[in-house]
Amino acid sequence: MSREGVLVVISGFAGTGKGTVVKGLLDRYEQYALSVSMTTRQPRPGEVNGVSYFFVSKEEFEATIAADGLIEYARYVDNYYGTPKAYVEEQLKAGKDVILEIEIQGALQIKKIYPDAVLIFVMPPSAEELRSRLEGRGTETAEVIEKRMKRAAEEAGFIESYDHIVLNDVVDQCVEQTHAIIEAAHSAPSKQKELIERVRKGLQGK
Amino acid sequence: MSREGVLVVISGFAGTGKGTVVKGLLDRYEQYALSVSMTTRQPRPGEVNGVSYFFVSKEEFEATIAADGLIEYARYVDNYYGTPKAYVEEQLKAGKDVILEIEIQGALQIKKIYPDAVLIFVMPPSAEELRSRLEGRGTETAEVIEKRMKRAAEEAGFIESYDHIVLNDVVDQCVEQTHAIIEAAHSAPSKQKELIERVRKGLQGK
Repeated sequence: MSREGVLVVISGFAGTGKGTVVKGLLDRYEQYALSVSMTTRQPRPGEVNGVSYFFVSKEEFEATIAADGLIEYARYVDNYYGTPKAYVEEQLKAGKDVILEIEIQGALQIKKIYPDAVLIFVMPPSAEELRSRLEGRGTETAEVIEKRMKRAAEEAGFIESYDHIVLNDVVDQCVEQTHAIIEAAHSAPSKQKELIERVRKGLQGK
Repeated sequence: MSREGVLVVISGFAGTGKGTVVKGLLDRYEQYALSVSMTTRQPRPGEVNGVSYFFVSKEEFEATIAADGLIEYARYVDNYYGTPKAYVEEQLKAGKDVILEIEIQGALQIKKIYPDAVLIFVMPPSAEELRSRLEGRGTETAEVIEKRMKRAAEEAGFIESYDHIVLNDVVDQCVEQTHAIIEAAHSAPSKQKELIERVRKGLQGK
């Protein structure tokens, strides 16, 4: 199968479980490659450099921006987050569907540069459920949880910029729905150039 | 399930087998309703008024245009073809995905009025295969086949206006791919207004 890869952006409020959905896609289907972001924030316990993120200093991050080595970046709660360009483009050429798990700011930047990118927003069933998932993590203070809920309220204003909204109620169903959306994106005209050109030339008797 | 219906436009060159794909969708899934077009052309043997088409006179057709009773119409080879509005809107409200099997001119009109409509173009594997399917029908003269091939060459210029291109090589696969595309369309933000509003209000503490 020599089809071209699709660039997939997955966003959602902190606590929606988008990481679990992404993991589900990567575990079940070989067609996916996860883009590893670069960040200046401190690693959390258990996070591995080069797997969870590329953890770099502020100076290194700014040097990468200057060298045009990021396809998008954003500042969020005093830290930089960005997507290194080289890996994404290599994987797309190799036919992989590349998943970016990024914030709204970055997602909107991506759509400008890659209009074919598929922007998917993972939604919680309700605000109450979102709060209860954040509390259930047990890793964040009440203050941080309030911050995240406030942030979610702000982010909610941008949901309509996404191409697709998926409800993460039952994780398994959410993974399958997300996969189906990405499969459908492979039939966009921009991904079917070869077929279109072949038939068109044949019809013109060339 | 109270989800809102999606308006689906299916087009393709004469002889591509789009009618078979549409029939496959209708036979396999209860969610679909087929819009019956109105036309001034003569019925072919076996065609039933109100099922294949609503067969009307030129005067009746023009009266329907005047009464704003069509969501699109076009003239094609000296005949009018159009889509009666009332049935489509009723079925969408009832939650059905309404399929319009129409020509490119009509499809582009639909997209202007219903930007959420999903435009699907059914492609033959090649121009040779298209010709052989037209010849295989055994119902058309060599002259008509040439006309249809020439028409296909013209229509091929508009393929990129469609949202999705599906290859009709193995019919069964084509039906399933088309169905998956329509399912994915249900996750567009315009079809998820209820969920978005509910979560948004919850986040704002309303």
